[in-house]
Amino acid sequence: MSSIFTKIVNGEIPCYKIAEDENYLAFLDVMPLAKGHTLVIPKKEVDLIFDLESEDFKNLWGFAQQVAKKVGTAMPCVRVGVAVIGLEVPHAHIHLVPMNTMQDLNFGNERLKLSSEEYQEIQNKIINS
Amino acid sequence: MSSIFTKIVNGEIPCYKIAEDENYLAFLDVMPLAKGHTLVIPKKEVDLIFDLESEDFKNLWGFAQQVAKKVGTAMPCVRVGVAVIGLEVPHAHIHLVPMNTMQDLNFGNERLKLSSEEYQEIQNKIINS
Repeated sequence: MSSIFTKIVNGEIPCYKIAEDENYLAFLDVMPLAKGHTLVIPKKEVDLIFDLESEDFKNLWGFAQQVAKKVGTAMPCVRVGVAVIGLEVPHAHIHLVPMNTMQDLNFGNERLKLSSEEYQEIQNKIINS
Repeated sequence: MSSIFTKIVNGEIPCYKIAEDENYLAFLDVMPLAKGHTLVIPKKEVDLIFDLESEDFKNLWGFAQQVAKKVGTAMPCVRVGVAVIGLEVPHAHIHLVPMNTMQDLNFGNERLKLSSEEYQEIQNKIINS
């Protein structure tokens, strides 16, 4: 069965898309730790990020760098934190999280509940930054 | 003043070295969240990881991938987690942390206290994996 992220890649499940190219996709996390929390994934469904072929792995991070810069410009924060955990969805994904303190990257924190209007506003802010 | 990591790069402060090339260095974190917790840094002192020039940024992650594979082979864990926070030391660094549950990557957790013999044992295990 396809992962939930493959369904997003295929357009079967909608997302608040931030950036896309032939191989990679970035979209807003809908269980965000902070406003602007973004996921970056390879379109190819692979569980462990370190199993990606070396060039593919490096290009995924190159893509994530461009997205992170836009997130950091759009969202007020001290810096954009990075996490790869991957125990929830077996499709490699990079979390980019606007941070002000170290505890902002604690995945045990309660997630924000945002309206679709709020997501769209954040999406537009990041895309246009 | 040089960052503590630049002092490690220059050999002014010792470390349990895991891997090194011309531009990057990996060594054991001495305030580990788990046994095998490793830091990967660019030798060039830059605060924000996303400020690295694109090729340099990608190559840093390529280097980290090789290190993470060794850490994952050497240390018993479900997977190797990744975090970039950087609010403590203003010299970009990637945390590679052997994880079994999501809470293993919580930087609010108490750090392990290991003896130098234990660090050396972990170091040898990772290097030789």
